[in-house]
Amino acid sequence: MEIVDNFFSFGGEQKVVNHYSSSNQCNMKFSIFLPILSKTKKVPIIWYLSGLTCSHTNVTEKGEFRKKASELGVAIICPDTSPRGENIPDEKDNWQFGSGAGFYIDATQEPYKKNYNMFTYITKELPDFIFKNFPLEKKYQGIMGHSMGGHGALIMALNKPNQYKSCSAFAPIVQPSSAEWSRPAFEKYLGNDKNDWRKYDSTQLIEDGARHPSILVDQGDKDPFLKDGLQPDILEKVCKENNQPLTLRMQKGYDHSYYFISTFMSEHIEWHYKNFY
Amino acid sequence: MEIVDNFFSFGGEQKVVNHYSSSNQCNMKFSIFLPILSKTKKVPIIWYLSGLTCSHTNVTEKGEFRKKASELGVAIICPDTSPRGENIPDEKDNWQFGSGAGFYIDATQEPYKKNYNMFTYITKELPDFIFKNFPLEKKYQGIMGHSMGGHGALIMALNKPNQYKSCSAFAPIVQPSSAEWSRPAFEKYLGNDKNDWRKYDSTQLIEDGARHPSILVDQGDKDPFLKDGLQPDILEKVCKENNQPLTLRMQKGYDHSYYFISTFMSEHIEWHYKNFY
Repeated sequence: MEIVDNFFSFGGEQKVVNHYSSSNQCNMKFSIFLPILSKTKKVPIIWYLSGLTCSHTNVTEKGEFRKKASELGVAIICPDTSPRGENIPDEKDNWQFGSGAGFYIDATQEPYKKNYNMFTYITKELPDFIFKNFPLEKKYQGIMGHSMGGHGALIMALNKPNQYKSCSAFAPIVQPSSAEWSRPAFEKYLGNDKNDWRKYDSTQLIEDGARHPSILVDQGDKDPFLKDGLQPDILEKVCKENNQPLTLRMQKGYDHSYYFISTFMSEHIEWHYKNFY
Repeated sequence: MEIVDNFFSFGGEQKVVNHYSSSNQCNMKFSIFLPILSKTKKVPIIWYLSGLTCSHTNVTEKGEFRKKASELGVAIICPDTSPRGENIPDEKDNWQFGSGAGFYIDATQEPYKKNYNMFTYITKELPDFIFKNFPLEKKYQGIMGHSMGGHGALIMALNKPNQYKSCSAFAPIVQPSSAEWSRPAFEKYLGNDKNDWRKYDSTQLIEDGARHPSILVDQGDKDPFLKDGLQPDILEKVCKENNQPLTLRMQKGYDHSYYFISTFMSEHIEWHYKNFY
């Protein structure tokens, strides 16, 4: 483990860590904010999964999560969005596939299956790593994310409701198997049998019986991707039909940017915190 | 006037504006956050001046000022740090001079005096422009800044205490005429007669009789520039000797970054607001 950066902020420590990931067979970076409370006791955790083209940096710089996390005494962990490096198969000019676009799945197809295992990395490898190295309370974990990362948060919470006590998303891709910006990636990572995709699609997971007690979704009504790729109405319909609780809030005037995310970040952290205790 | 960007955030509008500056004879950008209150009445203003190498973007993305500004109903205006463009004299490889390093003075020397007039731009031209175009309350203005911008806030407040009701700074350059990273720039912009520098040096302004009723300075004690360039103890000594009120807070553990600034941003905004009413 290498601490790449360590900034004092809001009374706590904002670290960036570099480590070797065996699931992805490359070095990976993530950021972790440790509130001052973590000096004296183990603290709850909220995972934040980022969207297409992002790394841990975007939310760490622009997410405005430290004030509330510091007040409540919660750690915030922000992983990268894909494996990266010279030896990782990629499509350099395609922002919807490869580097920055891991889609939080475990790939089954060549040449991606060796490195693109973000589902295992986020749900198993990285938790093992952080619980070994930082003062974190394993039983209080929540997960949130933005756009592609909102999709990641939803599928992880629905697949592992005991691991993640709470789930929230900003403008999530709710049906990646049909949306134009994710379907081609699913084909390349997972192959042509669409049954293999269902465990990585939140609407299909719910149709197949997966449930989570606590899902909050915020969606800006001026988001340029609203009608083409995000479509929260699909999630709303599936949740209603399957008695899956959902708090969906359409936020008037907001777009897809961190100016939107940062506005509601404190409320999301409070939502998770309330579900812990 | 061209609105380059307009993001809805914390109920208000975060705009980026491009306009022609006659003081600097080039196009200049600035950002302005208008809280929702500005829809119904004119709102107070806090100016934020940025540090070396920065533009309006750094604080607009990482400053975390919108939550508090929105709560109190205050506009935040973040200008650029220098003129920019192909025709502006510059030293490309020198981060302490030229582009990104206007030092908030009016240059008197060739070839800089035509374009490097940031003092006039910030104190006269840009106020005239924004009061004409946005619903802002002229009599409630405060000014703050970081590093080189902290120097800017101090000299503007001390030169124009009636214009700026309050003044605060994060890690300001308190004595630019002696500090190694500003003295060479002062020489090039202002020439060799150090008497001409005094109105742009906060400690010398105070020695010469300038006063401001309200100065707050936050300084991280782990700031790498603390002993070499910032030296708040010089300001403290001059203020004490000259009965200039100063609230200087050494902040334990903090460095020179936006992780430091964002931590105390809300308190600075509250400080200004209290001085308005």
